[in-house]
Amino acid sequence: MKKIGVVLSGCGVYDGAEIHESVITLWAISKHGGEALCMAPDRDQMHVINHLTGQIAQGEKRNVLVESARIARGNIKNIKEVSAKDIDALILPGGFGAAKNLCDFAVKGGDCEIDPGVKRLVSETLAAKKPVGAICISPALLAAICKGGPVKPQVTIGYDPDTAKAINSMGARHVDCQVREFVVDRENRIVTTPAYMLAKNISEAADGIEKLVKEVMGMIGG
Amino acid sequence: MKKIGVVLSGCGVYDGAEIHESVITLWAISKHGGEALCMAPDRDQMHVINHLTGQIAQGEKRNVLVESARIARGNIKNIKEVSAKDIDALILPGGFGAAKNLCDFAVKGGDCEIDPGVKRLVSETLAAKKPVGAICISPALLAAICKGGPVKPQVTIGYDPDTAKAINSMGARHVDCQVREFVVDRENRIVTTPAYMLAKNISEAADGIEKLVKEVMGMIGG
Repeated sequence: MKKIGVVLSGCGVYDGAEIHESVITLWAISKHGGEALCMAPDRDQMHVINHLTGQIAQGEKRNVLVESARIARGNIKNIKEVSAKDIDALILPGGFGAAKNLCDFAVKGGDCEIDPGVKRLVSETLAAKKPVGAICISPALLAAICKGGPVKPQVTIGYDPDTAKAINSMGARHVDCQVREFVVDRENRIVTTPAYMLAKNISEAADGIEKLVKEVMGMIGG
Repeated sequence: MKKIGVVLSGCGVYDGAEIHESVITLWAISKHGGEALCMAPDRDQMHVINHLTGQIAQGEKRNVLVESARIARGNIKNIKEVSAKDIDALILPGGFGAAKNLCDFAVKGGDCEIDPGVKRLVSETLAAKKPVGAICISPALLAAICKGGPVKPQVTIGYDPDTAKAINSMGARHVDCQVREFVVDRENRIVTTPAYMLAKNISEAADGIEKLVKEVMGMIGG
């Protein structure tokens, strides 16, 4: 059974992994005969957002790995313990957590710092020529990881001009994409889809994500 | 557009709404042309479970409505403000939250107490003969709500003997069901599916849930 690493970044669109994108990723992996290996870094979230009010929950702290475990139903690993040898492919769902907890792109843009465990595993996976999928804002994280290195990924986050510019500034190439579609960088074996960067409802996001998962899984061993 | 109420009970299988079941419900509603109206009671969770360790997070408090807002991406109502007139059908995903926060069936079994807002809306919806779907452990909540009243629902939670016995003790009728299937009580317009009471992976749960959503939506106005 193909084993697909799924990198989570908390549990909730505003301070963690986008829940719909993460669950649809897990569902598509299962539907197409794969097995998901969920993982997340063991570190504090940048902050906690009250998702009812949209405001920061002052004084509250949550851990990325512990909150990600909610999406994974407890079946999750510390990303530090995962090697590219353990997986056939890697997928990064979106949500602000990808740009706040896995790196700080949401605050620092192209000058962001990246969680060392995330940077190491994504770099290993790309170097091993195993396929990598990135959803929603995660292509910006991918661009940050590749910054200054040999891989110049071609990715999409839909068509937000400022985010596209920041991605290009890191040495990646942004291409526009519709919500239900995806972009493939065959040379670097990278697949990206805009999901909630553009989606007006969950089925729009899900269509792009399922296509991405199928494409990533189809690339394995190819 | 058909409007389907979705009753959430937090965010995480062990202390709230089962995230996969909730998201697949929202996806199936959207895919089949409906609009979801997410709601939850504004009350403290029974407790907070660390989903990495499975242990109670001592001293931590979370609010059911605030945590449910993570699954709803902030687009959620206090269930007290929702009337059966506002919706065409109602669906209750599972997770321990349904048996800990919407009622306390997980602790008290057939003698459980029910959140007043949940009890009122479900009763109104059944009385209006609008279809009601219940997933995973939620059929036990439904049985508790109907206890002593005119509706004697026929439901499934799969085939767990103790839970089935508790459901029957409240005056409902439990019937066994496979994970990818569902049970329809045509007289009372109630549809139930086992999902993670039985599912070994998300696609098994998703198949039953999508069928349930289609059946519930097909019953509207019929």
